[in-house]
Amino acid sequence: MSAATTDRKHPLDSFFAPSGIAIIGASRDVEKIPGRLLSMLRKNNYPGQIYPINPNYGDIDGLKCYPSIAAVAQPVDLAIVVIPAKAVLGALEACAAAGVRNVIIISSGFAEEGGDSSAMQDAIVALAKRTGMRISGPNAEGFYSEVQHVAATFSPTVDVKPGAHDLVATKRRVAIVAQSGGIGFAIKHRAKALGIAISYCVSAGNEADLGAGEFLDYMVQDASTDAILLFIEGIRDVDKFIAAAARAAKIGKPVIVTKVGRSGAGERAAASHTASMAGWSAAYDAVFAKYGFIISNDLDEAVAIAAVLTTSPLPKGDRVAVLTVSGGAGIWGADTVSAQGMQVPELSDSIQQEIRTLLPSYGTARNPIDVTAQGVNSGGLQKSIDLLSDSGEVDAILVVLSLSSEARMPFKQVELKPVIDAQKKPLVFYSYTLPSAFARTELAKSGVVALSGLTHAGVALKQVAAYAKFRPAAAATTQAPTVFDIAQYLTSSSLSEYDSKTLLRAAGVAVPDETLVADKAALDAAIARAGFPLVMKIQSRDIPHKSEVGGVRVNIANKADALAAYDALLENTRHHRPDAEIQGVLVGPMAKKGVEIIVGTLRDATFGPLIMVGLGGITTELFKDVIYRPAPVSPDEAMAMLGDLKAAPLLNGFRGAAKADISALAALIAQVSELAARHRADVSEIEINPVLVHPVGEGVTIVDALVVPARR
Amino acid sequence: MSAATTDRKHPLDSFFAPSGIAIIGASRDVEKIPGRLLSMLRKNNYPGQIYPINPNYGDIDGLKCYPSIAAVAQPVDLAIVVIPAKAVLGALEACAAAGVRNVIIISSGFAEEGGDSSAMQDAIVALAKRTGMRISGPNAEGFYSEVQHVAATFSPTVDVKPGAHDLVATKRRVAIVAQSGGIGFAIKHRAKALGIAISYCVSAGNEADLGAGEFLDYMVQDASTDAILLFIEGIRDVDKFIAAAARAAKIGKPVIVTKVGRSGAGERAAASHTASMAGWSAAYDAVFAKYGFIISNDLDEAVAIAAVLTTSPLPKGDRVAVLTVSGGAGIWGADTVSAQGMQVPELSDSIQQEIRTLLPSYGTARNPIDVTAQGVNSGGLQKSIDLLSDSGEVDAILVVLSLSSEARMPFKQVELKPVIDAQKKPLVFYSYTLPSAFARTELAKSGVVALSGLTHAGVALKQVAAYAKFRPAAAATTQAPTVFDIAQYLTSSSLSEYDSKTLLRAAGVAVPDETLVADKAALDAAIARAGFPLVMKIQSRDIPHKSEVGGVRVNIANKADALAAYDALLENTRHHRPDAEIQGVLVGPMAKKGVEIIVGTLRDATFGPLIMVGLGGITTELFKDVIYRPAPVSPDEAMAMLGDLKAAPLLNGFRGAAKADISALAALIAQVSELAARHRADVSEIEINPVLVHPVGEGVTIVDALVVPARR
Repeated sequence: MSAATTDRKHPLDSFFAPSGIAIIGASRDVEKIPGRLLSMLRKNNYPGQIYPINPNYGDIDGLKCYPSIAAVAQPVDLAIVVIPAKAVLGALEACAAAGVRNVIIISSGFAEEGGDSSAMQDAIVALAKRTGMRISGPNAEGFYSEVQHVAATFSPTVDVKPGAHDLVATKRRVAIVAQSGGIGFAIKHRAKALGIAISYCVSAGNEADLGAGEFLDYMVQDASTDAILLFIEGIRDVDKFIAAAARAAKIGKPVIVTKVGRSGAGERAAASHTASMAGWSAAYDAVFAKYGFIISNDLDEAVAIAAVLTTSPLPKGDRVAVLTVSGGAGIWGADTVSAQGMQVPELSDSIQQEIRTLLPSYGTARNPIDVTAQGVNSGGLQKSIDLLSDSGEVDAILVVLSLSSEARMPFKQVELKPVIDAQKKPLVFYSYTLPSAFARTELAKSGVVALSGLTHAGVALKQVAAYAKFRPAAAATTQAPTVFDIAQYLTSSSLSEYDSKTLLRAAGVAVPDETLVADKAALDAAIARAGFPLVMKIQSRDIPHKSEVGGVRVNIANKADALAAYDALLENTRHHRPDAEIQGVLVGPMAKKGVEIIVGTLRDATFGPLIMVGLGGITTELFKDVIYRPAPVSPDEAMAMLGDLKAAPLLNGFRGAAKADISALAALIAQVSELAARHRADVSEIEINPVLVHPVGEGVTIVDALVVPARR
Repeated sequence: MSAATTDRKHPLDSFFAPSGIAIIGASRDVEKIPGRLLSMLRKNNYPGQIYPINPNYGDIDGLKCYPSIAAVAQPVDLAIVVIPAKAVLGALEACAAAGVRNVIIISSGFAEEGGDSSAMQDAIVALAKRTGMRISGPNAEGFYSEVQHVAATFSPTVDVKPGAHDLVATKRRVAIVAQSGGIGFAIKHRAKALGIAISYCVSAGNEADLGAGEFLDYMVQDASTDAILLFIEGIRDVDKFIAAAARAAKIGKPVIVTKVGRSGAGERAAASHTASMAGWSAAYDAVFAKYGFIISNDLDEAVAIAAVLTTSPLPKGDRVAVLTVSGGAGIWGADTVSAQGMQVPELSDSIQQEIRTLLPSYGTARNPIDVTAQGVNSGGLQKSIDLLSDSGEVDAILVVLSLSSEARMPFKQVELKPVIDAQKKPLVFYSYTLPSAFARTELAKSGVVALSGLTHAGVALKQVAAYAKFRPAAAATTQAPTVFDIAQYLTSSSLSEYDSKTLLRAAGVAVPDETLVADKAALDAAIARAGFPLVMKIQSRDIPHKSEVGGVRVNIANKADALAAYDALLENTRHHRPDAEIQGVLVGPMAKKGVEIIVGTLRDATFGPLIMVGLGGITTELFKDVIYRPAPVSPDEAMAMLGDLKAAPLLNGFRGAAKADISALAALIAQVSELAARHRADVSEIEINPVLVHPVGEGVTIVDALVVPARR
């Protein structure tokens, strides 16, 4: 861990590795939070100076107590403030005056209460800005560092019980960053119970100054942290968060993220399908996907993923060997990893033969490999692990067995540890009985975490394999975008299809050659320009959904039909929407056939413009098969988005159809995303629905489009 | 539990509640299985007589040992056989001669070894049939009964540790029936660790005589069993299984089933999409759905469902109150139940006001209800439980809190137990920290199981709510089916569309009026009969996929086009498939528009004919949105199948479209299922793809159909 301290040059170094800690409001009562803070710091062997501050005591538990922070007269890197809310601001001023570098405000009664209390928090924000003193909280639960021996928290999970020994199975360490202290320390509690080593666990509280994004940034650069568990409700320091995420992606440090607040508020009120289908977490998921974050919305699942990341190397592929001592359990294991989309390939004859020499006649070496209970004693279990670890036939090994015994172990440390130490491929252990404390302790000596949930183990293998394949996207800047004055196209608060397409054309997007006919006399020229068969659509800024007013006619084959259609479109519209102001009828050629795709953009309050692509037509809403990314995206990133669609096979020559021109589609997606990103101040939503994707080399056709100007 | 003994009249009563047990092959070595069997029986306080049989001992551990079963000369209800495989058959003969009623063969080395050993198992089957003595195993792990105090198993999980106390939280009991002994007793291990009371845990072994179906049947009728956990790889006693399932559905005893062996063998080789899309477990899932089984493929999830069923009544709806002491955790809880499709409704003002009187200002009573840590001490947590339990606004309560403390409990038994005892609605407790043994023990006194997995808790609530809505389907017999001689329509090993439709028409299924034209001269008459626009399709028993050879022309608007189409169809077919024998061209009217649906049947090796319905078109395979049921189904059951499709909204007036004629579609499904069931010996698959479902009152149109005769 020496690298952890020598490499440090982060602004939060003095926060997470303070050389002196003051507790403002320290107390002798270890049953209450102020007293507990001091007691926890000492129990966890904090190596630096501790300065209790309380004018009422001369000393606490043998430690000198100071009347004020000013009286300390020693460098204090961190002050923990745990006094009534109304007294906090004064204490902060005193800290700043005394040169304290960082503060954690444990006290609550600020923004979470609203009203005057909220104003007090604003004053804290201002103080932090003015003085440069960094402040975590208020209403924070503090942090815990296993590497620095700092327990700057009152969480009961950092208590050190006499006689209890720490279970540590992993060489690599996990940092936990949580906006909820209760959850953050619960994650730590569960991770440590499995034997996962922790670097830091930090809770963010009200984030007056220091936020989850900045904490994440610290863990990304921290040399003692190998993977990060992140729990968020909503990011406040967005720029820092994005920078940290980008850095994690670049250096390949895995972040497992749980984002809550996904339900409840319902759908967004929006003009386009793109925006109305996007749940409030779509932008988060888009950002997570962009930076390769591993999303997990279950605590034990997230911890299981962390266990695999901290015990095993990344897998080189998705072929899993399932090794068991019980037939039914092995089949269950194979089912579970298969359900995650991983492969359970039958092993080659040569490796099967090698394994079979160590099995009784009723064992099987095909995969799942059932060495049977007898195979434990015969050495077949360990030998199979050795063989599979060295074999090029599989990328990971899932061992499924019973570890409930309090006395017997199916492995010898001298045999198992070298395999784990070699770090050739993920070796994941799952016990169908509850693993005993004995088994956990014994396996930890070899570097093994025994997982207790089979689905979690399967998901972890899948997520880690997916993470291994992740590569950060290159920046989206491609050719120079078309420069145009967008304002002159945003003349109304809502745009018609014609208006929208005119804007898109000006922005350099290829839209079909169509004519707006406002006078029946002009129809002939429009027909001549388009050629039969025609499509004719009513145009009005008041009618976003033309087909609902009978405002669309397709496949018009001759002039008589065109004239009739013109009259019918106007009549239908006037009948359904007598109030609507009609621009005219848009006349254009029928598009060639193609795969129906929807492309759109929306603006997220937290992360700004997003680009979306999905399978168009009725299935868009029914199967919600859509992918979002932060805009802009490069054509390569757009191509990756298309690959993530469940409907991807439709674009790749489904059932003998021609392959679709996905390059042209990806170029369009990139172009639209660039437009939305550049003009985020002026454009709220763009929706191209549908765009038809023709066979390779034949490009795409934008059938309908809608641009929604931003509200002023 | 007296009802459990007084009501008994099941053939397996003497198996599960034996009045005397012999152990054939008993031993003094408690480290080995034979010795352990005796030791476990005694440690678990078996109340009846135990007769160790071993000619080498006069007594074992103070118990008289007999040289042979004949020497016992007392009624023996159950003999446990644990001797080398080759000696087993002789021992069974001796048992039968001595009037032993039931045997468990622990010994292995039979069918699982293949060859001669398999023949020994056949001899056991024959002996069971001949003598009427019931035999479980060989290669069985035996059973355990908590209600009868019978530990007829060597599983380490039934060991009784001195000083260890049994955690029992539930009043109701779970029976475990597992084809794998290792898994069965692992389920028991995990269930008991949560405090779930067990009635029986039985493993099936090789099922020479007694199988999982018959064991299930026992648990369904057993009065001491309130819910059943079933683990199966493949059912052998299918008729008994189906009878037991039907009985469980009828009396409303929930069965939670895990079925493994879902992956691996790949897709079925079959002529129709219906059959080729059906995984090998589709029939199991269809049977499970028919009888309302709760499917769970994760051990802890299955046990969590059992915990809810044994602690709580069934919910009356899907509205959940999420009650927490920590904001972030409450949002996570709400997310989790929402992700399961349940409601988390905002509470009424009146109930919010009542709750708010007990909360600090930063708590919230909207739902999720955050009483905050302070709400535990103020009584707000318990009071909220009381209010929500009595309220008509929610159907279940999920309590999300931290139960890691080894010393403090957030509830008083005197307050909590009465709410649990009242059994008004499900009350599910989840701890985000690992629950302590103290908390489990204290909560058990009130009848509470603390769950440790949030997703499992959410799934359990959803599954139990779905189970509460389940009603067994009425028998499928509707009007008398059309009687016809199917053999005369099965003249070839493969049928063309024309042949298939002819068969369907004879069976009373309404197919369009179409003409097979084998001679161009007959085209005129066919056109006159159909009327324009036409559809024309090549017919050949050698070509199952007509469009792949360019064998389909649609929307033919005039005679010239029809003549050209006729020539083109023949030419295309001869070009692509010069070997194909051509029947002619099928000429019919274009179908009216409608929702494209696929209806099909297949035969499953275990369960026989199945009926399938799904959304047709390209999405069928892409989104696998299909539902299977055992055939036949009634129109009501067919209607329920349609409701289970993800695409159901498409049939119910999606985006302003007319509602589809689902009654007509349900009638067709029922009719086809009846046909497949009646003629299961002759018909292997039927596929109607697509059938177009027109608006209500306008029926359905079968566009294409394929009947696959059974191989002789």
